[in-house]
Amino acid sequence: MSGVWGNNLKISIFGESHGNAIGITISGLPSGVELNLEQIDKEMKRRAPGRNDLSTARKEGDIPEILSGFFNGKTTGTPLCAIVRNSDTRSKDYGEIKELMRPGHADYTGNIRYAGFNDYRGGGHFSGRITAPLVFCGAICKQILAKKGIEIGAHIKSIRNVKDKAFDYINVSKEQVISLRDLELPLIDRSKEELMRKTILEAKDQGDSVGGIIECAVVGIEAGIGDPFFDSMESTLSHLLFSVPAVKGVEFGMGFGITKLYGSESNDELYYEDDKVKTSTNNNGGILGGITNGMPIIFKAAIKPTASIAKKQKTVNIEKKKDENLVIEGRHDPCIVQRAIPVIEAVTAIGILDLMKGRDGWNL
Amino acid sequence: MSGVWGNNLKISIFGESHGNAIGITISGLPSGVELNLEQIDKEMKRRAPGRNDLSTARKEGDIPEILSGFFNGKTTGTPLCAIVRNSDTRSKDYGEIKELMRPGHADYTGNIRYAGFNDYRGGGHFSGRITAPLVFCGAICKQILAKKGIEIGAHIKSIRNVKDKAFDYINVSKEQVISLRDLELPLIDRSKEELMRKTILEAKDQGDSVGGIIECAVVGIEAGIGDPFFDSMESTLSHLLFSVPAVKGVEFGMGFGITKLYGSESNDELYYEDDKVKTSTNNNGGILGGITNGMPIIFKAAIKPTASIAKKQKTVNIEKKKDENLVIEGRHDPCIVQRAIPVIEAVTAIGILDLMKGRDGWNL
Amino acid sequence: MSGVWGNNLKISIFGESHGNAIGITISGLPSGVELNLEQIDKEMKRRAPGRNDLSTARKEGDIPEILSGFFNGKTTGTPLCAIVRNSDTRSKDYGEIKELMRPGHADYTGNIRYAGFNDYRGGGHFSGRITAPLVFCGAICKQILAKKGIEIGAHIKSIRNVKDKAFDYINVSKEQVISLRDLELPLIDRSKEELMRKTILEAKDQGDSVGGIIECAVVGIEAGIGDPFFDSMESTLSHLLFSVPAVKGVEFGMGFGITKLYGSESNDELYYEDDKVKTSTNNNGGILGGITNGMPIIFKAAIKPTASIAKKQKTVNIEKKKDENLVIEGRHDPCIVQRAIPVIEAVTAIGILDLMKGRDGWNL
Amino acid sequence: MSGVWGNNLKISIFGESHGNAIGITISGLPSGVELNLEQIDKEMKRRAPGRNDLSTARKEGDIPEILSGFFNGKTTGTPLCAIVRNSDTRSKDYGEIKELMRPGHADYTGNIRYAGFNDYRGGGHFSGRITAPLVFCGAICKQILAKKGIEIGAHIKSIRNVKDKAFDYINVSKEQVISLRDLELPLIDRSKEELMRKTILEAKDQGDSVGGIIECAVVGIEAGIGDPFFDSMESTLSHLLFSVPAVKGVEFGMGFGITKLYGSESNDELYYEDDKVKTSTNNNGGILGGITNGMPIIFKAAIKPTASIAKKQKTVNIEKKKDENLVIEGRHDPCIVQRAIPVIEAVTAIGILDLMKGRDGWNL
Repeated sequence: MSGVWGNNLKISIFGESHGNAIGITISGLPSGVELNLEQIDKEMKRRAPGRNDLSTARKEGDIPEILSGFFNGKTTGTPLCAIVRNSDTRSKDYGEIKELMRPGHADYTGNIRYAGFNDYRGGGHFSGRITAPLVFCGAICKQILAKKGIEIGAHIKSIRNVKDKAFDYINVSKEQVISLRDLELPLIDRSKEELMRKTILEAKDQGDSVGGIIECAVVGIEAGIGDPFFDSMESTLSHLLFSVPAVKGVEFGMGFGITKLYGSESNDELYYEDDKVKTSTNNNGGILGGITNGMPIIFKAAIKPTASIAKKQKTVNIEKKKDENLVIEGRHDPCIVQRAIPVIEAVTAIGILDLMKGRDGWNL
Repeated sequence: MSGVWGNNLKISIFGESHGNAIGITISGLPSGVELNLEQIDKEMKRRAPGRNDLSTARKEGDIPEILSGFFNGKTTGTPLCAIVRNSDTRSKDYGEIKELMRPGHADYTGNIRYAGFNDYRGGGHFSGRITAPLVFCGAICKQILAKKGIEIGAHIKSIRNVKDKAFDYINVSKEQVISLRDLELPLIDRSKEELMRKTILEAKDQGDSVGGIIECAVVGIEAGIGDPFFDSMESTLSHLLFSVPAVKGVEFGMGFGITKLYGSESNDELYYEDDKVKTSTNNNGGILGGITNGMPIIFKAAIKPTASIAKKQKTVNIEKKKDENLVIEGRHDPCIVQRAIPVIEAVTAIGILDLMKGRDGWNL
Repeated sequence: MSGVWGNNLKISIFGESHGNAIGITISGLPSGVELNLEQIDKEMKRRAPGRNDLSTARKEGDIPEILSGFFNGKTTGTPLCAIVRNSDTRSKDYGEIKELMRPGHADYTGNIRYAGFNDYRGGGHFSGRITAPLVFCGAICKQILAKKGIEIGAHIKSIRNVKDKAFDYINVSKEQVISLRDLELPLIDRSKEELMRKTILEAKDQGDSVGGIIECAVVGIEAGIGDPFFDSMESTLSHLLFSVPAVKGVEFGMGFGITKLYGSESNDELYYEDDKVKTSTNNNGGILGGITNGMPIIFKAAIKPTASIAKKQKTVNIEKKKDENLVIEGRHDPCIVQRAIPVIEAVTAIGILDLMKGRDGWNL
Repeated sequence: MSGVWGNNLKISIFGESHGNAIGITISGLPSGVELNLEQIDKEMKRRAPGRNDLSTARKEGDIPEILSGFFNGKTTGTPLCAIVRNSDTRSKDYGEIKELMRPGHADYTGNIRYAGFNDYRGGGHFSGRITAPLVFCGAICKQILAKKGIEIGAHIKSIRNVKDKAFDYINVSKEQVISLRDLELPLIDRSKEELMRKTILEAKDQGDSVGGIIECAVVGIEAGIGDPFFDSMESTLSHLLFSVPAVKGVEFGMGFGITKLYGSESNDELYYEDDKVKTSTNNNGGILGGITNGMPIIFKAAIKPTASIAKKQKTVNIEKKKDENLVIEGRHDPCIVQRAIPVIEAVTAIGILDLMKGRDGWNL
């Protein structure tokens, strides 16, 4: 069912792109956690549109109002709800959507799923905008995880055919993943920025869009987090990742590439270093049997090209039950990969905190 | 937490490779479903080892005994539990496991997770053998889905570098996916069988192992199944898929490949055919916004090379807290991709039935 | 964990008495349900304080703002969130609460549970005020159930020693339970109103409070709703009822009284009437084996006397770690039984809709 | 849905009275818990029939076989499944049940719920026999709670009109509740045993049955366990208690009796004793706002008279769709109150362990 997720944390998300407000309620947070609201705000801004020429011109404050569960600067331990009011929603831009199903969007599937009663304006509950509350929630989880020595960061592994370097699966550091958060286009090899920017803007000029791959690292996580069946670390993270609009693939460690190796190559050999167990390679991305082994968690998520494009497309008019051409008006992101990064980090933080909280002995 | 999954079905799995029995309890099945026990048996055999020279010589009957929820040949609607007794378990083969952590296995992570109290014999609860109850459950779900006109089938997309053809994302048929189930190595391009077999046996000869990619198709599913946040079709399936041992990547439709397209290429245009909405391409694998659009669901899963190999490997002895070499004795699969196929199909059936049962108006 | 409930509906509640707002998100509602907002408002008013001299003078608008999941007058099927802003909250009245634990309240247990970080003002998340969102949610569920021919109504079975008549367990009608909703003190035997009112006002004059018993009837529900283990109708309703502050007992049908009968007296004999199965008595309150039998569901809930009283009480000061006397200032309800009635009805509607939605074939 | 319960523990129950086996899988147990199998066996025997002339002559070994999750005498932390084979099931005694609905039983409601496909023999999944796996599970939970200093015990508060003394709500001790477990009829005032026994045997002689009230105490539990909405201690325990067949009422502390007091009488005043907060009365049964306050938890459960009686009863024949008389043959319990006691204790232990495990910092 739409809306609620979690075992040891429970999140309940709500909202439509052009409704009164979007938001999230987080149940199960520990009490007494001092929240850095500025840092939350900073995360919200990373996702917000209108920051530069690479994203839609639609401006949204995305300032969350905390309604509950927060008292004297700290979490109370009771459900924490925050909402973000919608504004600058030019509803007139979306008049045709009711009838003309945008290809690549959830217009048609949402219409069938909800028997035509869903709020279709701006994609409604399917809008990428609904990920803003996830970023809010993830920002809180990140702060809690940071107290445990865990940092999560991601970079653009590729935009279309332009590739960044990969993380060093063994030596990726907290400093590195943190520093990526300040970049407009988070890259390890900054020399690729120019080319990526050009790729995005060229697509924009053509009324088209591009996608890409996000690579994420979780550094500082201890061994023993996750479960075999059915709440493995991979299961938990992929469940959340595949709920993020536009994600079409998820792989851990070497992922699909591991299928080309021999077992003698793919197995990560173990050794002791300063009384700690390490692995000499990290092809499994820090997870074995669904459980962390203390190495960095590494995964990639495939983000498809933005579905909203300015080019003429063929589609169906479900009211008139006939084929028609569609030209989507309005402001659109030529690429959402960079805006998806804080969302990917956020759901990763949420998933990991949920699993950690489920361990006996867990405490802040 | 380990063990229980589902919203509208609930499955509870249990067992260790060398314990008394493994099994599963399925709650929420409709009542009055006539079960074809022969077909269940056939599915169990597809996964069972010892069938040919491509898998381990360990022979297991894998005959499930139904303990409850089944009366006069039909489901009662109350929880259905089935168990499979363990036999032919040469415990002596696994004596070293207690101390020497096998690379690529969950020995170390399981030891940390359960503070050393887990049953380490034969991988215990982490053994691939624990997927047998999933196949049992999936066989029941498949029979129910078949009554709804839905068929699920998979083939080996690749073993190491040997590739099969891909499904036709638009025209894959029920007959095709059903017919694949009878093949020892399910392939679309049967001419690749020889080469794949050779690749597996060469690895076996070298005391090594190989992995591969499984491509799965769900044919006949109606539009409107799945939810946006957080129980999207992709979230649901990936959650289950990543609980299957050895799965390291999951992608829907074009998956990671979609990131190399322009939006104008990746968007699946819609049109009417005989009053039904179809798409002219199926890059999104039959799912948009987490919800089926009536086209075939297509996804791929990466299966890593079998972790158990005969070659000498470096690892740690956690009792003596020092590095050692390990040579794993016993019988092992040089490749588990073909045995994983019925498991992949099974969890797919389970996930889809769960989502379908959650729809208002669902009925057998 | 605090906050989330439900299997086929999911509700997520939040808020503190003196925070920014309280509210609820309802996931899993069917789409296309036309909501009668006036009727929702009417239910909110039944619970709201300040209506007469029997309740606290604190005035609250209790006007819910729907933030999502509602479009063109109908539910969208995506999560519906509504909030109620807090106002008229004289925070100064509650200054002492931080240190002095009010007897009969959750001050001490909440303090321990949340390590002192909970919002203590006005009882915070433990305030009876948090039931307002439940009434909102129940009002929606009631409208859906009414379309199915089900009506829920309750009366005051007793206030202290003053007793109303009981429902006729067999013949209670929809008209009767509906008509009770309009009464300030919902009674079957209206001649008891005077005495009850007097009992309440006398307690008020003495700075004291009284409690009572609520008897609730669900009329028009079909047979077959509920499950044996663990979501029996009784389990589901009692779970929700015991989350309502001040409820200390729940009994179905004859409840504790049934223990004084012989089996030959307590067994409800069955017979056919117009091809429908009925029972000649209804000692089991319409439920057998956790499942409805088509007779009215009858249950009672014990509501303890309001914990806030004006009389001097002994308690502990947890800051100074010593015993002290406490006199609670501010405005209080001498009796909350009549205000609890719409809450009891609301959670009953929520519980029943959840169980009904879980049935195969359920549809609006 | 039938079968699965729990948040921090998950239990999955299965089985029918005359099927192959009944059982339970417990997920989420801590690893490394040494189980005292003799003590488990002792608990099973407390519930088992055939021990004396007060219960049915049906003899059942009720010897559980542990299939998984238990290794070298300790829990592994992975799902623990145990089954009990059915034997001595005289199926011929139950031939009529298929058509003639026994009054007071779930025959009719189960038939409707499962569309006639349920296993009707001996009550099938609705049989009191299905509580045996709960006792098994509760016995494990009790052992874990005992390590935390918590003991649970219950006595017969009444059989029909014969009453035992109540627990001392303040001073009930671990020794007292433990010692009750050894009694055939657990009573505080042993002088009532004769009269109770006589009441039961007289009902038996008349082919009739009696019910009664069980009072249960949880001693040694710390303050702070439970949640406000929706997993209050009362909600959690009542949910489980009302899933036990024959329970028709549950009340905490003074329960329904508290409605006759003034607030100044019902409020439990607090004071310090040796730096620990205590209450001078315990009318709220150790729970305020859904959370324990460190005083003993006290509750009562109403057990209706055994539905199976030898006397002739009127009922319906659902095959022939007409009214008929029914005389139930076979062996029956004239009173199940004493056999229900270990079940009540068991589900109490399960509920409390689930809530305790959900607390941050929980550890064995």
